[in-house]
This record gives sequence, structure tokens and C-alpha cells, in this order.
Amino acid sequence: MSNHRDLALSYFQDHEEEIIRKLKNFISIPSVSTDPAHKEDIQKAAQWLKEELIDMGMEDVEIYPTPKHPIVYGQKLDAGEDAYTVLIYGHYDVQPEDPLDEWDTDPFVATIQGEEMYGRGATDMKGQVIASLSAVKAITETGDLPLNVKILIEGEEEIGGPNLGRFIRDHQEMLACDFALNPDTGMLAPDLPTITYALRGLAYFELRVYGPKQDLHSGQFGGAVHNPAQALSELIAGMHDEKGKVTLPGFYDDILPLEEEEREELSRSPLDEAFYLKETGAPALWGEEGYSPTERVGARPTLEINGLYSGFIGEGSKTVLPSYAMAKISTRLVPDQDPDQVGEQLERYLTENAPATVRWELDQLASSPASLSDRTSPWVEAYAQAAETVWSKRPLFKREGGSVPVVGEFQEYLGVECVNAGFGLPTDNLHGPNEKVHLPTLKKGIQALIHFFFNLGR
Amino acid sequence: MSNHRDLALSYFQDHEEEIIRKLKNFISIPSVSTDPAHKEDIQKAAQWLKEELIDMGMEDVEIYPTPKHPIVYGQKLDAGEDAYTVLIYGHYDVQPEDPLDEWDTDPFVATIQGEEMYGRGATDMKGQVIASLSAVKAITETGDLPLNVKILIEGEEEIGGPNLGRFIRDHQEMLACDFALNPDTGMLAPDLPTITYALRGLAYFELRVYGPKQDLHSGQFGGAVHNPAQALSELIAGMHDEKGKVTLPGFYDDILPLEEEEREELSRSPLDEAFYLKETGAPALWGEEGYSPTERVGARPTLEINGLYSGFIGEGSKTVLPSYAMAKISTRLVPDQDPDQVGEQLERYLTENAPATVRWELDQLASSPASLSDRTSPWVEAYAQAAETVWSKRPLFKREGGSVPVVGEFQEYLGVECVNAGFGLPTDNLHGPNEKVHLPTLKKGIQALIHFFFNLGR
Repeated sequence: MSNHRDLALSYFQDHEEEIIRKLKNFISIPSVSTDPAHKEDIQKAAQWLKEELIDMGMEDVEIYPTPKHPIVYGQKLDAGEDAYTVLIYGHYDVQPEDPLDEWDTDPFVATIQGEEMYGRGATDMKGQVIASLSAVKAITETGDLPLNVKILIEGEEEIGGPNLGRFIRDHQEMLACDFALNPDTGMLAPDLPTITYALRGLAYFELRVYGPKQDLHSGQFGGAVHNPAQALSELIAGMHDEKGKVTLPGFYDDILPLEEEEREELSRSPLDEAFYLKETGAPALWGEEGYSPTERVGARPTLEINGLYSGFIGEGSKTVLPSYAMAKISTRLVPDQDPDQVGEQLERYLTENAPATVRWELDQLASSPASLSDRTSPWVEAYAQAAETVWSKRPLFKREGGSVPVVGEFQEYLGVECVNAGFGLPTDNLHGPNEKVHLPTLKKGIQALIHFFFNLGR
Repeated sequence: MSNHRDLALSYFQDHEEEIIRKLKNFISIPSVSTDPAHKEDIQKAAQWLKEELIDMGMEDVEIYPTPKHPIVYGQKLDAGEDAYTVLIYGHYDVQPEDPLDEWDTDPFVATIQGEEMYGRGATDMKGQVIASLSAVKAITETGDLPLNVKILIEGEEEIGGPNLGRFIRDHQEMLACDFALNPDTGMLAPDLPTITYALRGLAYFELRVYGPKQDLHSGQFGGAVHNPAQALSELIAGMHDEKGKVTLPGFYDDILPLEEEEREELSRSPLDEAFYLKETGAPALWGEEGYSPTERVGARPTLEINGLYSGFIGEGSKTVLPSYAMAKISTRLVPDQDPDQVGEQLERYLTENAPATVRWELDQLASSPASLSDRTSPWVEAYAQAAETVWSKRPLFKREGGSVPVVGEFQEYLGVECVNAGFGLPTDNLHGPNEKVHLPTLKKGIQALIHFFFNLGR
């Protein structure tokens, strides 16, 4: 086996250029899941992946349609019943590219500058998908897999759709495994291998506030009706109190307090106030009183305004009193908050606080629970050893602010834990313009995954 | 003279169709002043007007360029030095047409339905311009003018630009007159001739609130920095208190209280709460405590949000933490508020209330003072008599919520009063989609103007 491990590592090193080329091709498909205009690109990305899986020796490779975007699946079960089975997760969809004018390169033409590759999806998570596929391929091309491998790659991660959960529930036998690998998470720094053991949940809303039946002349009617943009602002302003706490009724009721031991572990994160100031470029930090930035983004729930629209937003001035105003609002949740209950809390907040001078409508666009993973499983230990082999350092354990619903769904429907270990960096601009991935870290990640799989071989 | 009056009225009636055709042509030129894309249309509208003025017998007709949009001017001074001189004001620019999808007809294809003509500018104020030109033409085509006529039509009314004020200041001799006619105002109802004696001023701003240096992942950073869309909402929410009063420091300091006599006159307006509810379609009225809707829009200053933008406003969800947020904010002012001082008040409000967690920038895009006109001048009396001739009713006096900066500029630079009498209706949807003008009222208006000019003949 140790011989095969070396062969696989060599194979990877001999094929680095091919891997880079593949990632560039993958990024060139604008598989933006939220935009109906990209429906064909979504299909194209799924087809591209299907061919990749076949090419690397996977069997039973199939594109499973869902009511929205398809799921790509393949497996190779030659290691036998005595061997472990890993289910590797990935998503091929990406965030929208806008604001386009803030990109320095074409978001869908992967561009290497120094050690970085720029492009939408470079780090979230086309780079991570290519990393896990490349690690498996390095092994299959040089011998037999030391464990059974199942690969599931979905297309709705960035829109938090309900279809993956249903698919997992309906395919429990096919997806049965001992543990899952989820590389849709990141490292704290290029020299700090990291295992994420907690991910925040997400509840995403669109709130529309309506006033007059149509846009009015602000001189002719201004002062006599409640301006919906003002009413929306007033409602948003009331969603936090002066201590930075979210005011939705019952929002914090189900949350377990952070234990001292955990706060200590989190305080070892190198992402201190100086990091957050530098990386965000904000004039000053902000947040819930009594918590560090690392705790605020990883271990505490938050409410964000993701978008605002009302009236005239073009160049110059237009004296319009708008007929409606819209906000995209999302909450990031921690265990044991229920995203649907948070929807009810927001609804209650609006019922209690919206004045009779406006009407409102609320849609919940996404809903996924937070997850907390076992930090002591054999899979976590195997990854920790693999990471130590590559980086000469034990991994840090961290809680992540982002949401990866699949971790909770694997726990719920398959009864298995995830090893959440990907190779993105906090500086990768994911979801923003100039998204990038750090190529040396991605390559080390592929080596770590090769070691990880061999560490679990019997 | 009385014979000439009848001839002019007949001439008008014989040429109604031609007038409608002219208005349609005028509306078909999309002279949107705020949008640089319409620069050529602005020129086209000015050229179209120049030809109209020449065609109706005006002399010294010229297009005067300004740093932005040109001014069209013409005059006919045959009535001699003993006769009065009137300066007729108009503007040929219009508001942007958006939101386009809320129009039932093409905004730049004037469409008659029943008694209404729909189209951008139909009432504000291409219809009013055509009305005054048609009244003058009916007189010049049937004899000599009973008074000297000067006509000035500008192209920056809807953007509140500084160029008209400068032009008036620099052409005091050319524009010298006994009084001005400003038809850029309206009537309270089709059977209620109306003279506007007060117009609100305008101060228009764009406020931009900046947080992180670029859009961030709301999971990765949400909770650690102040979301600019939230910060903007908080600032906007604070701009009114719970009594509907504007909180900018010093905002009400210079305002003269409404006198009982004036409140009584205003209370005779037929625009009661039921009108405002029906016309706006708002679920309930709103506004400054202690004032009626008519007082709120006419006699009290207000602050409106005209536009809001931040982050992702497309279909679906994007979990972005936006880097900035923008609001278009305007205040409508009453005598003796100074629009530039209001700019300083808003600046002070922001300095005092914006948190250190965000940066902000404020631009003042428009600035014009309110005006209050003499209700007892001979010109006002001549118009009152003319209106009574046509509608068999003495006109009501009203204060209007909109802003027509030229009224104050004529007072300041020419030392003359305006008769503010136009034929728009409160139901005309000015500045909104489906703007329209009521054709029977416009035609009566032309008759009233013919009488008005003859009433002032010597």
C-alpha cells in the first residue's frame, strides 16, 4: 500500500498542468444557479462532470434530474465490504458574478496571476471539486482504491434549494457510507490546515414593503403617505438593538451557550481583529457585544441585509415617491436554531412592527439548519494525520460562518459525520468580485487527500 | 378689442385638432433631462420649439446654449411701451419614464383614451406649454397682441439645475417684464380653477454609505462588520421622529408658522383625506402630526426617500454582504428655508449620527428655494376674472407641494411676481407611470389664457 501511495503522489505531481487546465475549463462554464438565464450552463456543467467521473474510472455514473438543477453521481466500490466507504460531496454551481465592473478579470475566464487563479467558483467550489476528483484519480490511475468511493455533486448549493435533501432521503441505500468528505470549507491560512466542525445554517428572505398603488410625485404627495423606502428602512433599523443583537422575537431562545473550553479553542484562531479589519477594509469592526470577531462569524447567529431596492437608482435625480421597496435579508444560524422557525420569528417581528401605513410581503427563499460535527471520529483523526504529513502541523478546529446544508442532511438521512476539510482561504473573495484560489494550497490539499484516503485503507 | 377676443376664441376652436397633433409630436421627443443618453432628444425638443415660436409669429427667436441643456427664447413687442409685458415660462424637459413596465402605453407615443391623453410630459408640462403657445397663437393669427409677450422655455426643470437662474440673472434686460405666467402648476379638480400662490423648494441629495472595501461573503464575514445597507437604513430611520417630523438639526428653525386665516383657506381644498387615500392607494395616510394632508404636502416641509440601492437585487438569493449602499433623498422646503442650509443640516445629521463603522459621502444634486406669491396683484385678478368667464367660478388659492424654482428666480432677478396657473390635475400621475392630461380641461385652459391676455390689454 505504501508503494501505491507514493505512486499516486508521483502521478499527481506529473499531472499538475492537466489539473490546472481542467479547473480552467470547469470555471469557464458559468453555472450560476440562481439565474434562470444560466439553465443551459448548469446542464453543461453537469455533463462536463459526468464525463470527468467516467474518465477517472467511476462507475454507475449518472445525471439525476431534480425539479431544479441535476445531481451528478458516480461510485467505485471495488475495495470490498471490509473496506470503508467514503461519500465525497461537491457542488458545481456558483454565485452570480455581479458586480461585474468590480472584477479585474473576466469572472468566467480563469486567469492565473502569481500563485492565484482568479475566476468565479475558483475557490467556491470548483477548485475544491477538482482537488478531490484529482486525488481519487491519482489513486485509481496507479492501482486499486484503498476504500470504496461515492461521489455526489449537486447544483443548488448557492441557492439553498430543497432538492438535495430530498434526493439524499430518497437514495439512502445508494449513498450509504461510513463517513463523508466535504471540501466546501476552508483553511485559516496557507500554513494552517483546518478542520471545520461547525457550520452555520441559513434562512434567506425577500421582504417587500408596499405603499401607494404606483410611483407618485414626491412634491405633490410627499408628506401625506408613508414612503415605503422609509418604512422598510425603519423596519430594518429595528432588526438589531444597540448591542448588535438581532431583535426577532425568540431568535436566541434555542441557542446553546458557548462553553469556555470551546471559546478557548476558538481564541487560538489567527483571524484576529487586525485580520478582519485588513481583509474587509471596513473603517471599524462591528458586531454583537461580548463576542470576538471569530465567535461572531462562526459561533453566533447574525442577520444581514443582502440587497436593497426602491424607486429611482439611476444617475441624477428623480423626485419620485416610490410605490414599493424591497430588501433581501438573510440570517446565519447556529445549532439549534430552526430556519423555518426563524422565518416565523421574522414574520412575527413584521406583524408587530410594520405600521398600518404600508403593506408587506415576505418570501422565504432558502432554509438550511446549522450543523455541529464530531471532533473525535476516526475519519477526523485520519485527516488530521494526513494534514500533518503535508503541512507538518496538526490542524486547527474551527467553526465557520458559512452554511453547507449537506452536512446536516448527511447526519439526518445517512447517519454519518462529515470531515469538513477544504482548501479555500479567508482571503479568496468568495461570493465577491475577484474570487480566487491559492494554487500552492490547492495542490497541497490534493496531496493531503491522497494521504487521507490511504490512511483509511485497510 | 372685444371683437378680436371672439375671433381668437373661434380660431382656437377651429384649430383644436392641430393643437392635439402638436402635443402628440412634442411628447414623441423623449427629452429626459436627467439621462445623458437623451442629450440629442433634448436638442431636438429645443429645435422643435424654436420652429413653433417662429411659426406663431414670435421674433428674435433663439436657442441659448447653457453648460447643460439649452434655453429657447422668443418675443413679440408690438403692443408698445404703454402695454403690459408678460413673460411666459415653460420647460420642455420631462422626467425619466421608468418604471417602464408599469406603463399601459408607450410613454413617448401619446395615446388618447376617452378624455385623457397619456404620455410622459403630457401634463408636466408639454401640455401646459402647448396651451400657452396656442393661446398666444390664436391671438396673433387673428390680430395684434394686446400686450407684449416674451416666452422662455428651459430644459432643466426636472433636474433642478443652476443654469436657468444664471441665465435670468445675466439677461435681466431682455427678460424685463411686468409679470410672469407660470403654467407649471395645476388645478384642484376639473371644475375648480386654481391659482397657486406658494410652491415648495427642493434640496435633492445622493447619500452613499461605504463599509467593506468590496462585497463580502455574508457567512464568512457577516456579524463582524457593519452592513452598509443596515447602516444606511438606520440613518434613514432616524431622519423622522415618531411624530413624523424631520430630525435634521435646525430643519424647522426658519419656518414661519401657518396663520389661522391661511389654514382656513387651505381647509377649503376639496383634496381631503378621502381624496389622498383614493388617489395614492396607500393603506393609510401618514405624516407630520397636527397638520392636514393638504397642509402636509403644501405648507410643510418634508423629507422623502426617492431611491434605495444596495447589494443583490436580482431574482433569487445571493448571500452577499454589500460593500456599499445608496439612497436618493430629497427635501421639499417652504419659505424661508434655504436649500443649501438644508444640505448643511443633513451633513450635520450624518456627522452626528453615522457610526464610525462606516464611511459616507453626500452629494447635493439640486437646490431651489420655495416661493410665496402675492395673492392680490392685478395679474392675479385678471386671471381670476378669466377663469370665472370660462368655469363660472372664482379660482381657489392653493399652496403646492411641488417645486418650480423659476418663481423664486423671477422674484429675485426680475423683481416680478408670477401668476401660477396651469391646467394639470392631481390625478394626472405626473412623474409616475401613465402620466396623462385631461384634454377638456386643457382646452378650457387655453380659452382662459386667451381671456387673461385680453383682460390685461390696454
